[in-house]
Amino acid sequence: MNKGQLIVVSGPSGCGKDTLITAILERMGEEAFLSVSMTTRNMRGDEVDGVDYFFVSPEEFEENIKNGQMLEYAKYGNNYYGTPLGPIEKLIETGKTVFLNIEVQGGASVKKIYPQAQKIFLVPPSLEVLEKRLTARGTDSVQEVETRLKIAIDELRRAEEYDYIVVNDVLEDAINDIMSIIRANQLKTDNMKNIISEVVNNA
Amino acid sequence: MNKGQLIVVSGPSGCGKDTLITAILERMGEEAFLSVSMTTRNMRGDEVDGVDYFFVSPEEFEENIKNGQMLEYAKYGNNYYGTPLGPIEKLIETGKTVFLNIEVQGGASVKKIYPQAQKIFLVPPSLEVLEKRLTARGTDSVQEVETRLKIAIDELRRAEEYDYIVVNDVLEDAINDIMSIIRANQLKTDNMKNIISEVVNNA
Repeated sequence: MNKGQLIVVSGPSGCGKDTLITAILERMGEEAFLSVSMTTRNMRGDEVDGVDYFFVSPEEFEENIKNGQMLEYAKYGNNYYGTPLGPIEKLIETGKTVFLNIEVQGGASVKKIYPQAQKIFLVPPSLEVLEKRLTARGTDSVQEVETRLKIAIDELRRAEEYDYIVVNDVLEDAINDIMSIIRANQLKTDNMKNIISEVVNNA
Repeated sequence: MNKGQLIVVSGPSGCGKDTLITAILERMGEEAFLSVSMTTRNMRGDEVDGVDYFFVSPEEFEENIKNGQMLEYAKYGNNYYGTPLGPIEKLIETGKTVFLNIEVQGGASVKKIYPQAQKIFLVPPSLEVLEKRLTARGTDSVQEVETRLKIAIDELRRAEEYDYIVVNDVLEDAINDIMSIIRANQLKTDNMKNIISEVVNNA
């Protein structure tokens, strides 16, 4: 069995990150999961603990921070939100691929906690295309689209902090690119050592 | 344009290396080349300089060694044989993928001269399968097959010197694995920096 891995995906708003991750999760089936965030806010309506969020007390959240178990976190108002490493590590141990869909800001700290993470930066083919996509969503005013484009340019300048850069022009190509990255990482010698022992020891 | 790359492929005799590389070269067409060796022996019959070998004088070969331009080399009898970096670098600059099919012994020195090389170790699914393949070739005696298997076990123990390990069980899967490695390397941030500048500067 290949060891699993954590794939961090970031990219400017409108680059198609959510659509892409959903498509890959569908294609990989039982082999891939989206990481679940942790929060100290109250559970709402039909939310399920461990599915929508891991709902914990502020004390438990702070304990996780102290133990270096939060890949990234932030406090909004009185509540903490973040990504706990523990559940991700359990999935990785069983050979699963875990996706973390995260803002460029949050992505910066992940490798400090978990250096093995593979960070992918998703970019639009051009700023014109990004503007068209943002405008087509119809959710933002002209002013808001303008602001998002400015933020996008700032974020694109931080792409060098990532391991891989994937251009999301044709969705199918971008899916295949990310599948290639996942496969290549599975084939890295560190993740394949057991295969060699199997071949030699079954002699 | 993505930058090209050097892919070094090694593996025990009978693991299917030659068949695999031939199939990938066919699939990649103009995008991939097999590296051409350099030698000081005389040209024979219908051999072509630059195709079968680069035929050079002993002085030129030694000059290449001195300048750190030989990825690996050996002397058999009075003649040098080796792999010159220069022609490979020219292809890489134009975005091509270059394959170097090489023994485990020769592969060890490549990264000293060209650290960017990606080294792939090809393994059989099991020693039983390797034995069957070697026997099926019909070119080796039982004794020779035995010797090849012993060498194979020694070589498998050196697989950790490689960046990637690919199991050659079903040929098509092994081809796809190597294509994934090539694509993932093209997508590494270092090889994609120009894409980011293009996106930002065309604003």
